[in-house]
Amino acid sequence: MPEMEGLSISKEGEKSSKNAMKKAAKEKEKAEKAAKREQQEREEKEKAAANDTAKHLYGHLTYENPPPFAESFLDLGELEGAEENSRVTFEARVSNVRAQSAKLGFLVLRDGFDSIQVVIAEGGGQSISRQMIKWCGALSAESLVRVTGLIKAPVEEVKSTTISHHELHLESIYIIAEAPEQLPVQVKDCNQPPPREEEGEAEKEGIPNVGLKARLDNKVLSLRAPASAAIRELESEVTRLFFEYMIEHKFTNIQPSYLAGAATEGGAGVFEVKYFEEKAFLTQSPQFFKQMAIAGGMKRVFSIGPVFRAENSNTKRHLTEFTGLDFEMTIRHHYHEVLEFGEKLMIHIIRGLQTEAYPKKLTNTIREAGYPDAGTFQLPPGDNAVRITFAEAKALLAEAGIDGGEPHSDIDTSQEKALGKLILAKHATDFYTIDAYPRSLRPFYTHPSPSDPALTHSYDFFMRGQEIMSGAQRIHNYNDLAESMRQKGLRSDDEGFWHYTEAFRWGCSPHGGGGLGLNRIVQFFLGLGNIREASLFPRDPGRLTP
Amino acid sequence: MPEMEGLSISKEGEKSSKNAMKKAAKEKEKAEKAAKREQQEREEKEKAAANDTAKHLYGHLTYENPPPFAESFLDLGELEGAEENSRVTFEARVSNVRAQSAKLGFLVLRDGFDSIQVVIAEGGGQSISRQMIKWCGALSAESLVRVTGLIKAPVEEVKSTTISHHELHLESIYIIAEAPEQLPVQVKDCNQPPPREEEGEAEKEGIPNVGLKARLDNKVLSLRAPASAAIRELESEVTRLFFEYMIEHKFTNIQPSYLAGAATEGGAGVFEVKYFEEKAFLTQSPQFFKQMAIAGGMKRVFSIGPVFRAENSNTKRHLTEFTGLDFEMTIRHHYHEVLEFGEKLMIHIIRGLQTEAYPKKLTNTIREAGYPDAGTFQLPPGDNAVRITFAEAKALLAEAGIDGGEPHSDIDTSQEKALGKLILAKHATDFYTIDAYPRSLRPFYTHPSPSDPALTHSYDFFMRGQEIMSGAQRIHNYNDLAESMRQKGLRSDDEGFWHYTEAFRWGCSPHGGGGLGLNRIVQFFLGLGNIREASLFPRDPGRLTP
Repeated sequence: MPEMEGLSISKEGEKSSKNAMKKAAKEKEKAEKAAKREQQEREEKEKAAANDTAKHLYGHLTYENPPPFAESFLDLGELEGAEENSRVTFEARVSNVRAQSAKLGFLVLRDGFDSIQVVIAEGGGQSISRQMIKWCGALSAESLVRVTGLIKAPVEEVKSTTISHHELHLESIYIIAEAPEQLPVQVKDCNQPPPREEEGEAEKEGIPNVGLKARLDNKVLSLRAPASAAIRELESEVTRLFFEYMIEHKFTNIQPSYLAGAATEGGAGVFEVKYFEEKAFLTQSPQFFKQMAIAGGMKRVFSIGPVFRAENSNTKRHLTEFTGLDFEMTIRHHYHEVLEFGEKLMIHIIRGLQTEAYPKKLTNTIREAGYPDAGTFQLPPGDNAVRITFAEAKALLAEAGIDGGEPHSDIDTSQEKALGKLILAKHATDFYTIDAYPRSLRPFYTHPSPSDPALTHSYDFFMRGQEIMSGAQRIHNYNDLAESMRQKGLRSDDEGFWHYTEAFRWGCSPHGGGGLGLNRIVQFFLGLGNIREASLFPRDPGRLTP
Repeated sequence: MPEMEGLSISKEGEKSSKNAMKKAAKEKEKAEKAAKREQQEREEKEKAAANDTAKHLYGHLTYENPPPFAESFLDLGELEGAEENSRVTFEARVSNVRAQSAKLGFLVLRDGFDSIQVVIAEGGGQSISRQMIKWCGALSAESLVRVTGLIKAPVEEVKSTTISHHELHLESIYIIAEAPEQLPVQVKDCNQPPPREEEGEAEKEGIPNVGLKARLDNKVLSLRAPASAAIRELESEVTRLFFEYMIEHKFTNIQPSYLAGAATEGGAGVFEVKYFEEKAFLTQSPQFFKQMAIAGGMKRVFSIGPVFRAENSNTKRHLTEFTGLDFEMTIRHHYHEVLEFGEKLMIHIIRGLQTEAYPKKLTNTIREAGYPDAGTFQLPPGDNAVRITFAEAKALLAEAGIDGGEPHSDIDTSQEKALGKLILAKHATDFYTIDAYPRSLRPFYTHPSPSDPALTHSYDFFMRGQEIMSGAQRIHNYNDLAESMRQKGLRSDDEGFWHYTEAFRWGCSPHGGGGLGLNRIVQFFLGLGNIREASLFPRDPGRLTP
């Protein structure tokens, strides 16, 4: 649907096609309005002409004809335990319409990831008319309706809806917001994993499979697919579990700044902002601000917020903007306090997703939509994570013939994935951590290991063989930091580092922390193929909308 | 201290003075390092020469000489209930040093907003030596130390520390991080409200009062002042109370995007970002994304994150970046569901701050530092807010002879403050809401009032006569939205509005919401003079650092 393309960037001939689109949209809009007005007028006339006995029981809900206030108003999701013959009112979207005969029709109504069958039978309710059944049969998919009716047990279990042991026998139905006949994508076609091009995945049971681009272009519609709605709820559950754990462990929530006067680390990967008459930069991570808070005497801090990366990476696990769940804490005896805290935090989050009723329901919804890895994430019992050192990781890879490199050479993405499979086979876990990275692989601010200066007090966390967090003890002494920078060929008085290094002049506690990628946690917990499915409004080098 | 000025913008001669600063800093750094090395060597020699019996009980803590692992390690804040004669270990900063004689010295140690007196007596502990007492007497303020000692009842209540019924009889002390002799600002001079220029406020008890600019330039130091630390903790408490309330009321946490492809509302007040080869913009509020989530079938959403405003306002209540606590919800029967939810939310937050033990302690700390309005915030009993209509607000002002304007003319900031005083006198509340603003004063997307088309379903929230939130029911029907835009002289197919208006084509629930300013809540709850005190790293047209 060209009128939905919107503001895609770096495309040729964009201006003229956009103008054409606008004109077309405007004409369409006019036509839609006229058609709607006509239809409503026709309806009213028909009702009057037919002396429709049910005319007060259906129609468009307006301020001029509000339906009676419903005491029994609930969410469809709350209906599971409702008693038979109880009268309920709820709002939901039309998902499917089926007119069996002039005397009998069916609707499937959907709200979030719940759906129910609605029966409209002549003479049912107060006195349902054939006109009303016909009217229901003409409802357009995705229209939002308010229905009242009686809960009944269906003759046989309804297989096509999530609520299978109840159906609603309609008494009244009003349109709250009408969707047009033509939609750019069908919601039900978005309720399965988008096709992975390289794998040429088959369509599910003959249902057309909408590609990821069309889903993102039409997010308001694709978001309504139950699997998509459940992914969003699951993201919220991860954030909740994180927030609650941090508060319980006496961390203080801080709000870092996202605008900085100078680009740290030389400016690579940093977005530039026009700041009145000057330049500013979007911060790449809250790390500097977390560390400043610690230097300012705070003991344990955490933040939740956007992380901006101006990297022209078009992979399945990179975004230019993602959500960071960050923490930083003082160290009393050893850096492993930080690592252990992070491990227990992640186990708390994953275990919470696996054992609490609501996230379990979400994961089921996603699996049932055809995501094969939703619900398969493995975690060993207990609250200790599987932890290996970088050297042990290299040895595992060498044993398996996957890596023959130098002891301090990096482990690349494909090796990481292979390592994930080796560790899953050996320890039955999809979550593990790697400790003690070589100094050559970590940034200048990473604290060296006192027992082996070639190594550092640093770690990465992995889910299904892919990194979800990087963290470390940071150098807290100004002179040590300046020296480490010199060794890496950097200058502590450089414009980009000035404010960072200054913070450690006035006596700073030993400390460490890390930053979890919220979207990656969701992606790898569920085994989603693309991180764009794990972001509400993904941003990448080619996407800034909607 | 010129070397702390850093990256202040729009100043002349910046480059050359910065180079000079860098050079000076480099030399200073060298000198500091040499001096420190010398001092440590001298200490070691002195200890050896004097055959110091206590030499293992003090010094610099390094990986080479770690002190024994302390089972009794705690935070100073946990010490209040400690038993007499119990042995404790904690870390804190040197706040004050007093050598009474060669045989007796005192320290005041501070951690966050707690402080304690430490007694160092010859022969005390395992065998404290005169050398050790002398060494303690030379500790520089703000150095971080780890101390072990016995809790004792002081001879008389200690008035200069927050912990007045306990003191620590020192057994060992190690420097973890040393602060230099010279600090750009003294922490204790930052523990009172910064001077308000226009009022020429007196300094507290002869203590020099550091100005706001110097505090912000040296945030790592000024943040250590107990009042400043308590303000940060209070901010975290507001966020926690908000987060918990939203989860309890079944709101889903969403992560809006902060980068957008087009500037909404014509681009005024929006920061422009260089996005690879294209332009992007920092979003002005998460409203669009919240509304898209609702249009996408979500029922109740909330977000916490930065709000960017490219407005060249240099007032005491404006920042270019602040934290928004936002929510959006579907409406069942009437827009007042939204307004009432927001009112109960705010009452929950304010009541929580006033009744829970920890925020009460924080507010006390802030009041004791000389902030006169901390702890005076008034709220009526019960959980209903005082709510008046815009028309009633105008009438109150007219009655008081403050406003004689047209019925639909705006209430300006000074009138708002006067209104706050009138309502405080009448209803004994510092928190209230104003409903039903005229259409001429609200943006195009605000839902008109069905009973009076000149009014809208919109509201503002106030604390101490200043706005902390603006909210409304939004128009959810595409045609109505397009029509409202036409009436305001806007075009629904404009580049900046395209994606906004598109979202309402596919059937959207009636909905409304609002955005609270976190920093303003903290500012006005405590009665702080300047919003910059209520932000960890404030950003304004002249400040991008630290």
